[in-house]
Amino acid sequence: MIEQKGLLYGGDYNPEQWPREVWDEDINLMAEAGVNIVTLGVFSWATIQPSEDAWRTEWLHDIVDKLAGAGIAVDMATPSASPPPWLGLAEPTVRATTREGIRYSHGSRNHFCPSAPAYRDRAREVARRLGAEFDTYPNVAMWHVGNEYGQYCFCEMCGAAFRGWLQKRYESIAALNDAWGTAFWSQRYSAWAEVDLPRVAPYLINPAQYIDHRRFASDLLLDCYLDQRDSLRPLVGDRPITTNFMGFFDLVDYKSWEAHVDVVADDHYGDPADSQQPHHTALVHDLMRSLGHKPWLMMEQAMGAVNFRHFNTPKTDAHRRRDVLRAVAHGADGVLSFQWRQSKSGSERFHSAMLTNAGPGTRLHQEVRKLGADLRALGQLQGEHRRGDIALIFDWESMWAAEEPSVPDRRLRVLERVQEWYRPFWEAGFLVDVVSSTEDLSGYHLVVAPSQHLLRPEALGQFRAVVERGDQLVLGPFSGVVDEHTALLPGPTPAGLTDLLGAEVHQWWPLPEGGVEISSDRHGSFHVGGWAEQLSVGDAVVLATYEHSDLGPAVVSSEGLTYLSCDPPAEVLASILLDCAQKAGLAPDLGPISSTRGAEILRRGPLTFAFNNSETPLQLELVNPVVDLLTNQPASGSYQLAAGASAVLREESR
Amino acid sequence: MIEQKGLLYGGDYNPEQWPREVWDEDINLMAEAGVNIVTLGVFSWATIQPSEDAWRTEWLHDIVDKLAGAGIAVDMATPSASPPPWLGLAEPTVRATTREGIRYSHGSRNHFCPSAPAYRDRAREVARRLGAEFDTYPNVAMWHVGNEYGQYCFCEMCGAAFRGWLQKRYESIAALNDAWGTAFWSQRYSAWAEVDLPRVAPYLINPAQYIDHRRFASDLLLDCYLDQRDSLRPLVGDRPITTNFMGFFDLVDYKSWEAHVDVVADDHYGDPADSQQPHHTALVHDLMRSLGHKPWLMMEQAMGAVNFRHFNTPKTDAHRRRDVLRAVAHGADGVLSFQWRQSKSGSERFHSAMLTNAGPGTRLHQEVRKLGADLRALGQLQGEHRRGDIALIFDWESMWAAEEPSVPDRRLRVLERVQEWYRPFWEAGFLVDVVSSTEDLSGYHLVVAPSQHLLRPEALGQFRAVVERGDQLVLGPFSGVVDEHTALLPGPTPAGLTDLLGAEVHQWWPLPEGGVEISSDRHGSFHVGGWAEQLSVGDAVVLATYEHSDLGPAVVSSEGLTYLSCDPPAEVLASILLDCAQKAGLAPDLGPISSTRGAEILRRGPLTFAFNNSETPLQLELVNPVVDLLTNQPASGSYQLAAGASAVLREESR
Amino acid sequence: MIEQKGLLYGGDYNPEQWPREVWDEDINLMAEAGVNIVTLGVFSWATIQPSEDAWRTEWLHDIVDKLAGAGIAVDMATPSASPPPWLGLAEPTVRATTREGIRYSHGSRNHFCPSAPAYRDRAREVARRLGAEFDTYPNVAMWHVGNEYGQYCFCEMCGAAFRGWLQKRYESIAALNDAWGTAFWSQRYSAWAEVDLPRVAPYLINPAQYIDHRRFASDLLLDCYLDQRDSLRPLVGDRPITTNFMGFFDLVDYKSWEAHVDVVADDHYGDPADSQQPHHTALVHDLMRSLGHKPWLMMEQAMGAVNFRHFNTPKTDAHRRRDVLRAVAHGADGVLSFQWRQSKSGSERFHSAMLTNAGPGTRLHQEVRKLGADLRALGQLQGEHRRGDIALIFDWESMWAAEEPSVPDRRLRVLERVQEWYRPFWEAGFLVDVVSSTEDLSGYHLVVAPSQHLLRPEALGQFRAVVERGDQLVLGPFSGVVDEHTALLPGPTPAGLTDLLGAEVHQWWPLPEGGVEISSDRHGSFHVGGWAEQLSVGDAVVLATYEHSDLGPAVVSSEGLTYLSCDPPAEVLASILLDCAQKAGLAPDLGPISSTRGAEILRRGPLTFAFNNSETPLQLELVNPVVDLLTNQPASGSYQLAAGASAVLREESR
Repeated sequence: MIEQKGLLYGGDYNPEQWPREVWDEDINLMAEAGVNIVTLGVFSWATIQPSEDAWRTEWLHDIVDKLAGAGIAVDMATPSASPPPWLGLAEPTVRATTREGIRYSHGSRNHFCPSAPAYRDRAREVARRLGAEFDTYPNVAMWHVGNEYGQYCFCEMCGAAFRGWLQKRYESIAALNDAWGTAFWSQRYSAWAEVDLPRVAPYLINPAQYIDHRRFASDLLLDCYLDQRDSLRPLVGDRPITTNFMGFFDLVDYKSWEAHVDVVADDHYGDPADSQQPHHTALVHDLMRSLGHKPWLMMEQAMGAVNFRHFNTPKTDAHRRRDVLRAVAHGADGVLSFQWRQSKSGSERFHSAMLTNAGPGTRLHQEVRKLGADLRALGQLQGEHRRGDIALIFDWESMWAAEEPSVPDRRLRVLERVQEWYRPFWEAGFLVDVVSSTEDLSGYHLVVAPSQHLLRPEALGQFRAVVERGDQLVLGPFSGVVDEHTALLPGPTPAGLTDLLGAEVHQWWPLPEGGVEISSDRHGSFHVGGWAEQLSVGDAVVLATYEHSDLGPAVVSSEGLTYLSCDPPAEVLASILLDCAQKAGLAPDLGPISSTRGAEILRRGPLTFAFNNSETPLQLELVNPVVDLLTNQPASGSYQLAAGASAVLREESR
Repeated sequence: MIEQKGLLYGGDYNPEQWPREVWDEDINLMAEAGVNIVTLGVFSWATIQPSEDAWRTEWLHDIVDKLAGAGIAVDMATPSASPPPWLGLAEPTVRATTREGIRYSHGSRNHFCPSAPAYRDRAREVARRLGAEFDTYPNVAMWHVGNEYGQYCFCEMCGAAFRGWLQKRYESIAALNDAWGTAFWSQRYSAWAEVDLPRVAPYLINPAQYIDHRRFASDLLLDCYLDQRDSLRPLVGDRPITTNFMGFFDLVDYKSWEAHVDVVADDHYGDPADSQQPHHTALVHDLMRSLGHKPWLMMEQAMGAVNFRHFNTPKTDAHRRRDVLRAVAHGADGVLSFQWRQSKSGSERFHSAMLTNAGPGTRLHQEVRKLGADLRALGQLQGEHRRGDIALIFDWESMWAAEEPSVPDRRLRVLERVQEWYRPFWEAGFLVDVVSSTEDLSGYHLVVAPSQHLLRPEALGQFRAVVERGDQLVLGPFSGVVDEHTALLPGPTPAGLTDLLGAEVHQWWPLPEGGVEISSDRHGSFHVGGWAEQLSVGDAVVLATYEHSDLGPAVVSSEGLTYLSCDPPAEVLASILLDCAQKAGLAPDLGPISSTRGAEILRRGPLTFAFNNSETPLQLELVNPVVDLLTNQPASGSYQLAAGASAVLREESR
Repeated sequence: MIEQKGLLYGGDYNPEQWPREVWDEDINLMAEAGVNIVTLGVFSWATIQPSEDAWRTEWLHDIVDKLAGAGIAVDMATPSASPPPWLGLAEPTVRATTREGIRYSHGSRNHFCPSAPAYRDRAREVARRLGAEFDTYPNVAMWHVGNEYGQYCFCEMCGAAFRGWLQKRYESIAALNDAWGTAFWSQRYSAWAEVDLPRVAPYLINPAQYIDHRRFASDLLLDCYLDQRDSLRPLVGDRPITTNFMGFFDLVDYKSWEAHVDVVADDHYGDPADSQQPHHTALVHDLMRSLGHKPWLMMEQAMGAVNFRHFNTPKTDAHRRRDVLRAVAHGADGVLSFQWRQSKSGSERFHSAMLTNAGPGTRLHQEVRKLGADLRALGQLQGEHRRGDIALIFDWESMWAAEEPSVPDRRLRVLERVQEWYRPFWEAGFLVDVVSSTEDLSGYHLVVAPSQHLLRPEALGQFRAVVERGDQLVLGPFSGVVDEHTALLPGPTPAGLTDLLGAEVHQWWPLPEGGVEISSDRHGSFHVGGWAEQLSVGDAVVLATYEHSDLGPAVVSSEGLTYLSCDPPAEVLASILLDCAQKAGLAPDLGPISSTRGAEILRRGPLTFAFNNSETPLQLELVNPVVDLLTNQPASGSYQLAAGASAVLREESR
């Protein structure tokens, strides 16, 4: 993280929208609100370079100077997300093309083609120029390349780039034919030139082509980032360089980007209208904490409503507070918002800000100031990282494969299953690491893989090791099915694990509306919809059984391996998963609190965060006396957590 | 209106579909049905000009002659809506292009590009030729240019036309950059050539570009109309020239067309399957009566079913009768239908007609004849215009801005809100003028603006004047928000009116499913979904309050200004709006009837129309004795209005 | 059918996906499962011809030889469905184009343009080469051209082909203008070059153009088939040549293909998740039995799940068994599956197979073997054909016309209505012939036409003849409406039959949600939604009447003609239709069984099939003692049909 004492607080700042007198007002208001960092330049390309040979950076120097004067750091962005109209007109290849072959027009943003040399060269140039001009400012604390990388392009150049990527991957066309299974449907390629992007086709596209295209698209965007990172590096020394991620965003495999960013930075806009938002958000935060296994940065969030949804409910005061503090609880070293001042014009004029169009006198802005003070009070947490109790496996490529259109059930949403499996651990106060199946799993006593559809040999090796060393592994439905090319692994599933399980899957059984009943002595009878499987059981213990003529066991386990062939209701899933945690010898660390009792509890460093996501007060039993760091109120015996409230408790030794 | 004693009755007539013997039968049947006008030529281009240098108008002369012989007037149409296939092949630019760049093929209609000189020149030519050939017929009473103007084109020519329109509007590219707020998202243009139509883009399009494109598209179609009107004028003398509007059709701002048509003519096809149709239709009629503030013409309606909906329910006999008479009640000087005789072939062969394929012996055709006689009996109403009691504001540009995709809530439908606000006045028997916010409002004691999202300075001035002179102004949610470029007006909303209101809006609050409760002493407690707002109140009186932790007042008012921040249920809305009418000192004129009691009542000139839109009889109390003009039955004391019935009452002095 | 004793059993086999050792294992397992035929080569083009001048057929010779060794016949396919990538790259015209003008890319299948000479020539060439090479194998028992013909292309070549087809059909452009009714909407063509495919248009496309395009598209695919059939014929002698149909697939009029295939072969994938599947499937089988009026071949079905639906429920063991035996009951001389061995890769790797990826030890494969034995036991049925009791009319062109977008109700689905009308006959155990309105109907005492929207003069003549000879005709709603060009037939409907009916239809009346009540003395009161009609009745007997102000009779009949103007609920429809069967003097032949009592019963030759599609056992009363052929169990008096069970009963003379 950048060199800064305490936690970061601030947001995107786009002063090019405002006259100079507003800048001064802004900086005064920022100081009053506790802002200590702003991101500049994200969408400034057309202002910085208004035409091919004109460069205008004076204004940027001025604002960096002014911010320096107020002690506010700068996260300096390269403006490459949106090339200016003059470039898109002079070099049409700069603008990306849809799957249908339509080249984007101007008027929006993020319209660039990631392959076009005309784009790549100029993006590098503008990054180099900014790096050279701003390397000497002490308050330029961090570099931010581009913005929310995440798009496809289907132009001819991207087609050629895909062929290049495949050549590097497969070396021979024969190897590609083999990997892609082109013997089926007469798809055998005789030369590289015949291979193309998955454009428009009359029916299902080859799934190996599909998944390789997704990998390629993620890698191509990474190349765009690396272009600029490598251009900046010699100019900016060891100041951190990063770009902003978007949680589980499904076009980019952030696991493969992790090593290339100095700080993991995330943009997160949970929907306040979604009652499931708290645990979904916590899961995303745990992913970010686990990418790099160190403190991360909330690079963008909203203080109120966003404007990209069908309808955009704002946050209540209590909700806003929980969101900011939850990020810190999950290891964020700072919370930045989009944006400092609400835009007057443009497509985001209805996106909220730290300072809205209604001015500084609003409830919202008063709360923004209060949060600034709160984060200052939590400065001791900077740099604190905590390793999780449990490994929850998430692989982008496995999600891509499991949701590819030719699978047995297009209703399947991997992320939803992952969220459901995360939830009971979150409710119990466990800290969960969200990791890939191929990173080191040796330290975990409990490994849960809700949807390990694509199983690489390395992952299989690790999974077997978990069981063989006496730890617990839990596998979800449709796991152990395909290899990295989406080809079926031979034999029954979960492939390579049926011996350890003592059971095997013979058929997948997507259920029509109505679903099926399941009976279980241990977990009670329950009902499932969506997915089921036909199992054949050897030595495994049967924990639950389908009430269906052709289906038998639904949940089975051996000593160290539990397999779920369906998606049980939340309380049953919790019962199964918490049983496994117990078998693994795990218990949550709730600090001074004896049990969660409906609250969301999480420890970071010496502090314990408690959130009440409900509309009714909660009573927490205390093991030790505490002081609420934000109110300085002591409590012992029990702690009353008001409806919607957040608390940060410091344990006092009894 | 055309020189004609009494009301017009007739329809589109496309004799080119039929052999000559059918023409004679048609004219006989028309005469028997009371038809006194038909529209000829709307889709006759390919018949009139079967190839570039061939002109065939003899048939048209023949039919005009025949109609003259039967005393039937002609509304002569220019056939420009559908250029013939030979032209579309020879000059592909004549065919319009979709947003995705696909040029339309032949086989449908209204496929022309409004910018293409190859189209514009030839449309002018055919209009001139018809004008010159038919200017001497005394029964050619009216000219009808094109048909239902209302389409987009995204060809290169339209792109150039858009740039031309923008240059005229903004003069300098700097002014456009300022108006469009291009400093955001790196959209700054350095030259006119970089500006384009809102084509396909990866994300939200600049809202100022969006709204200017909508204005441009409306103006471009108006240019097409004016081309022909100006070509016809020297040839046709003072005979009225018009084109047919389509109610609140959202691609064209009819307010800006109003001055250019000699008669306001409307095509209206309310859906008989929609139980809300009566007041929706009445609202459209009031819009037409208010465009030009004079009698108007129902140019097209259906006697039975249409065929462009997903399913097309026909009209019952009672419904057909109410529809025809309602138009007259709302100021129409005639009712024409599409079309006289049902087509045998083509895409509208299942559209009903005055004479259907089943022949003259049907119930439908007998009713058509009865209506002809009825309209003859109402001839005294020709030319009668009545000014409304209340001004209801509707601006196309404000609707466009409020429904633009980057707003807080894409569920918002301005027209639906306008319909809801219109309804209580309609139910009470008030006559409502549907006017723009910038036309003269000085004569109205009550001005209601259900959705004044875009607020021009001129409108603000008028709104302040309403309040300051002691009249009543009522504003709906999300009002006073943006300027003509969709840029946020500075400060809290309703901008420029918060001082008169004594309250200000701080946040818009689109509600998730479930909505919120509102309590009100005056109007009872109620529930709203969809939209809400966070208000901060000074001197305003709070009429209703949200039951929500972060929301307070929901409906507030000062002496002359009432503000609703939500969409209350119909009965609550009625209570609020009728309170305001009372404060404004208004009461409806129901003629001889003491109160509406569930009936739809409207005065025009000396007559009072009464409609029963329900399936049960209604009993109306009479202040004076009446005679039903259509049945010649007298009544006094009370009048029994049968289920579904229509009545036209002439008051007899007691 | 091919020269083979007994019924065929097998499936598609794509050995090019597997190494040689798998081939030997496959052939052993096939033999054990009772497989006696496999289809080779459907998607082998890229393997057979890996580049323009390279031909690789040795592998195909090898596998044919190996199969011969095991006594397994070959259905040899030409691989024209999917041209190889090298061809699509070298000759882009080979790849079809969407309506929007996008040319397909590689990666899927069935992407060919049916007009392109570059495709047609090469498809002919590969067929000739295979014919020449494999004509001498005695086990090559049958030829299979292409696969599931059924696609559109909108390229320029197809445009030209459409014009050619139209020229042949209409000879003069004047005749086309007349047939298409181009006098409406200014669509008159002055030259053939102006006529085009129904590409993208701003509004409804001319319905005659629409329906001619559908006919053209079907004919064009037939040309593709005939190309190859005619190339093969001189090479393969009298071995049967066919292609695989897809039931009621709506892009191809199989009635016009019927004469050109030596064996009617069908691919059928009923959805096990659909509770209506049994009678829908039976209906499709009866269509196939009636195309050619002889035994047919189930060319493809699934042993378990498919993978092209949104979710793909597999078959239970009981369901699989019913499906296979039902096809035989309805006249199939064999049942083949897609495919023998589940693919490891490609877009159908999750499609089930006779031998799944989980290996031969599964329940599914054990059942596959059992079915092989069962079909062997039913060998005596080969060649048995039974003519139906009832003619049910289905015409592709009438369906196309009735579902064309400009009709009164786009909710109308002809096939759904046909299914509903078929159901009561199927439930009662009648055998129904599914025939066209223009084939010979003279032998039927009951003709039912659920949706005879398009009525040709030949059909009208036959319909009149049915009534006039004293047999029964039943017509469904919206019948007798248009001619072959979708032009309205003159006068009230059912056109040409109103005199025989004594009633006429004056308006179609699509109903809004809520529908309408109908009262009937004979059939009880009931409720209908969707469609209704306004009738005027002369001599007809009114069987049911709408409870609606503007609607009267709903179901009417004369001596020999019954007309339904709505879609009654299943039990009412059954009552009406079975009344008509009784009037026609018909009773079902249930063999030894006294009545169906909930079971699905069908006779073929000397055997009686009984299926229990429910989850509860059924008790059948026996007229004569029987032996169950599959279990060899005798029964008399009654027969207990277990839940889900299938039985094949041989009647023992008492």
